[in-house]
Amino acid sequence: MTDYQMFELGDVVLQCRKTLRNARLAYKTYGTLNAEKDNVIVYPTWYSGQHYENEWLIGEGMALDPTKYFIVIPNMLGNGLSTSASNQATPFNASRFPNITAYDNVRVQHRLITELFGIEKVKLVTGWSMGALQTYHWGALYPDMVERILPFMGSAKCSRHNFVFLEGAKAALQADAAFKDGWYDTPPTKGLRAFGRVYAGWGLSQAFYRHKMDLEKMGYASLEDFLVGFWEELFLHRDANNLLTMLWTWQNGDISDNEVFGGDFVKALGAIKAKAIVMPASTDLYFPPEDNVFEVAHMPNATLQVIKTDWGHFAGGPGTSPVDIKVLDDALKGLLAS
Amino acid sequence: MTDYQMFELGDVVLQCRKTLRNARLAYKTYGTLNAEKDNVIVYPTWYSGQHYENEWLIGEGMALDPTKYFIVIPNMLGNGLSTSASNQATPFNASRFPNITAYDNVRVQHRLITELFGIEKVKLVTGWSMGALQTYHWGALYPDMVERILPFMGSAKCSRHNFVFLEGAKAALQADAAFKDGWYDTPPTKGLRAFGRVYAGWGLSQAFYRHKMDLEKMGYASLEDFLVGFWEELFLHRDANNLLTMLWTWQNGDISDNEVFGGDFVKALGAIKAKAIVMPASTDLYFPPEDNVFEVAHMPNATLQVIKTDWGHFAGGPGTSPVDIKVLDDALKGLLAS
Repeated sequence: MTDYQMFELGDVVLQCRKTLRNARLAYKTYGTLNAEKDNVIVYPTWYSGQHYENEWLIGEGMALDPTKYFIVIPNMLGNGLSTSASNQATPFNASRFPNITAYDNVRVQHRLITELFGIEKVKLVTGWSMGALQTYHWGALYPDMVERILPFMGSAKCSRHNFVFLEGAKAALQADAAFKDGWYDTPPTKGLRAFGRVYAGWGLSQAFYRHKMDLEKMGYASLEDFLVGFWEELFLHRDANNLLTMLWTWQNGDISDNEVFGGDFVKALGAIKAKAIVMPASTDLYFPPEDNVFEVAHMPNATLQVIKTDWGHFAGGPGTSPVDIKVLDDALKGLLAS
Repeated sequence: MTDYQMFELGDVVLQCRKTLRNARLAYKTYGTLNAEKDNVIVYPTWYSGQHYENEWLIGEGMALDPTKYFIVIPNMLGNGLSTSASNQATPFNASRFPNITAYDNVRVQHRLITELFGIEKVKLVTGWSMGALQTYHWGALYPDMVERILPFMGSAKCSRHNFVFLEGAKAALQADAAFKDGWYDTPPTKGLRAFGRVYAGWGLSQAFYRHKMDLEKMGYASLEDFLVGFWEELFLHRDANNLLTMLWTWQNGDISDNEVFGGDFVKALGAIKAKAIVMPASTDLYFPPEDNVFEVAHMPNATLQVIKTDWGHFAGGPGTSPVDIKVLDDALKGLLAS
């Protein structure tokens, strides 16, 4: 019993010049594709998340309304549902799973949208965090197809500081001898828990913790209750190699690092014709608004709208901050109506 | 051959109700104590640092001028020179080394100053980071003795967010099986390197990395060169149990958590009679200025002076940012002259 479907991609040659054999893209759709095929929203997943962890932004009366739109959530390669280190047959399984770029991801998502559904226009692409990274790629790679984008709490290129934060989390996971360089039979739980603990300081903000929002907004009984109950739990049941696959994807995210733009970041930003709203959170520690300011300055049709919040990166997270989600939802409604 | 001296403390009963037997406080002095014994500066060490790693702020013509002042650097308990997990005799060695508070540290430092040197007035206490934590303790515990304090890039109480950052670094270190719950014979180098990698994102700022100051100001050849050459190196040669001792001291730092103030933080801040300048760095990720704003508002004789910088916590670090050190040095000069 699954609540999603599989698109068979066949053999996919990746940017790294390895081949994902019999690759599969797991996706779920919400709502109905209309006859004109012009009510399409693409909504990629975030780091480690699976499609059902995107659903908090979808609902009747919300911007992403399945009674109006045909919403497609493609699961990122490496996230455990689409082809991943954890489900790939030998010999490219586990530690031998190839490096996947956001470019690789968006190319196969484009195949899903065009080959399976015959869609030629996408009304909106939106996503949180690594979902935003994929959103930017959609805009830059398919400028004549994508009408609007709203990347939130993400960037078109992984910043050096963001890269360093991820190095720390990765090192914590890999320090666990049970990880066995990726050849574990049982999960490296100590490393996964450490990964969650490193993440805990980054995912939210200084102000979040100062105001004890873990206790007063999220209902945890103590800081330790929150660290174990939320952060360790968030990663404990994810596959370590999958986490490292997606971490590599994140660290190497760059809309210009491909044959289309040849590493010219400004050129890639300039290629995004879609009407765009870029929404960072004021207190996001790894996607600070400053990086988006640069991007928006080089995108021909974009505006920056900073969400003022104490929730840090999780202002746009899975349903944690209703106030911020309202701001985001309103922006999505405005953009869709324009 | 050592460049420091030892003050024999005898048996010290700690706040945790364990006894440090034959405890020793390692210290170094610079300059000469004058006849009036009124030219004294106390300058405690930072997290994991030893006295020689404080020396960048001392020099002729600088505020901390050894031709004018008698400067005492006491090494923190647990830092590997003063009594520590790494040098304590059985049975309280290694993992059995007791929890040490900043209060414990400052009480034995006070004994050094009064018992050994017969000093009754301290012109200035200053320190960076955990050195600032000890500085606040000096001000609150010995208000009639301490005339001036200048804590920089630190706080009087460990914030919840700061606590969480440290939990992440700790978890990374402890994830290494070679740590053996503290009973290692050879250093857990993988964990120590992971500890450094986690620290790397926190110690500097987003802007530091954005502007490639690791390359352009510090002379590293690449980001990876910096992560290994600076951050892994910073912790690789420190003892893991010592790091955890001081980490506990840091996480549990609170000037009011003792019999004097009974947990009343505002009362403890109010007890600091010393003329104070509190200097955070604008981009410090774990000692953000906001926490100092609260403190200064409750200190009777304090002003806040934020250093505007991209160097994050390391604006006040060991000689890394000459521009910021100039600002700090000028503030110290002004305070000493007042």
